[in-house]
Amino acid sequence: MEIYLQTRSEETRRHILAAALELFSRDGYDATSVAEICRAAGVSKGAFYHHFPSKQSVFLELLNDWVKSISSQVEMLEAGGSVPENFLRMSKLMEGVFRDASGRVSIFLEFWRQANRSPEIWQSSIKPFHTFQDFFASLVQKGIDEGSFRSVDPRLASQLIVSTAVGLLLQGVIDPESANWGMVASDSFELLIKGFERE
Amino acid sequence: MEIYLQTRSEETRRHILAAALELFSRDGYDATSVAEICRAAGVSKGAFYHHFPSKQSVFLELLNDWVKSISSQVEMLEAGGSVPENFLRMSKLMEGVFRDASGRVSIFLEFWRQANRSPEIWQSSIKPFHTFQDFFASLVQKGIDEGSFRSVDPRLASQLIVSTAVGLLLQGVIDPESANWGMVASDSFELLIKGFERE
Repeated sequence: MEIYLQTRSEETRRHILAAALELFSRDGYDATSVAEICRAAGVSKGAFYHHFPSKQSVFLELLNDWVKSISSQVEMLEAGGSVPENFLRMSKLMEGVFRDASGRVSIFLEFWRQANRSPEIWQSSIKPFHTFQDFFASLVQKGIDEGSFRSVDPRLASQLIVSTAVGLLLQGVIDPESANWGMVASDSFELLIKGFERE
Repeated sequence: MEIYLQTRSEETRRHILAAALELFSRDGYDATSVAEICRAAGVSKGAFYHHFPSKQSVFLELLNDWVKSISSQVEMLEAGGSVPENFLRMSKLMEGVFRDASGRVSIFLEFWRQANRSPEIWQSSIKPFHTFQDFFASLVQKGIDEGSFRSVDPRLASQLIVSTAVGLLLQGVIDPESANWGMVASDSFELLIKGFERE
């Protein structure tokens, strides 16, 4: 019985998140109310507030979920082989990241837009940038140490990697029809990393 | 007298654009009304509609103004010297682009967000991406032809340049305090272009 309730509760939580994702994407964060999320998710307000203290907390959870899923995929790949091989595996991963992103469309723009308004959302929005920057900087440094990369500035190279990812993601969101963005992202990354390698 | 009126009219137009830029950035596009723009600009509704048919047209004008100013700066630089030298001059230009952008903050996010909603804004929002992509692709091709660049895919290299610029711009907007983004942009571009060069 306890297990059944847990599962049910987990399902409610997932319904709330899925409904909120759709409404925030379609109507924007400001225009979406908790009542509408409840209606779309088919849950009571009581059930909503059992899981989330506020609309903002649902929003933050969506952001964190997405960052966590990318982080765990990226970290899994960093094992074995040379640093360029690691990066190559990561660039293949970009296709999946873009596939995940495609259903979310304007929610990313909402994250970044709300970041200008709420310090809490801002903190959550910039943290992944810094995390990925530290991660890639240490990987580039490892590439230099093992002799795969020429002596580029690791922080700058990492900044370039993160900026490229962010820029591609944004273009994929705004202009999904003009390219197979997953493939463009994968190929762009290969080209970028090739520029760091010793000949 | 005619000249005086022209000047006055031009001034009114500039006031409307400046007020709209500030209000869209601060409150968002949806939350800003024509009445508020008029109040902030100190103009009558009649004067507003003399210059602009709608709120959307003011919004599009702000977008076009910004794109035009970057385009004209970029095109001016493409004259004389090798292609890597051209790119180097462009990367120095990035500092100015970021300075111009810093006052606009969330207006960029508004452009991209509204692009999901209005076909007309969408067209105007993606056009600069395509224009810059064509421009950089032909410049990279020129670099390959003159022997400065290795035989990279010009479309892909151009995509990488545009994505980096977009990503840096977005990070600069969201997280202005964590770096001197103009300098980061300039240095990132140099590093990126260096990756295309023959050793």
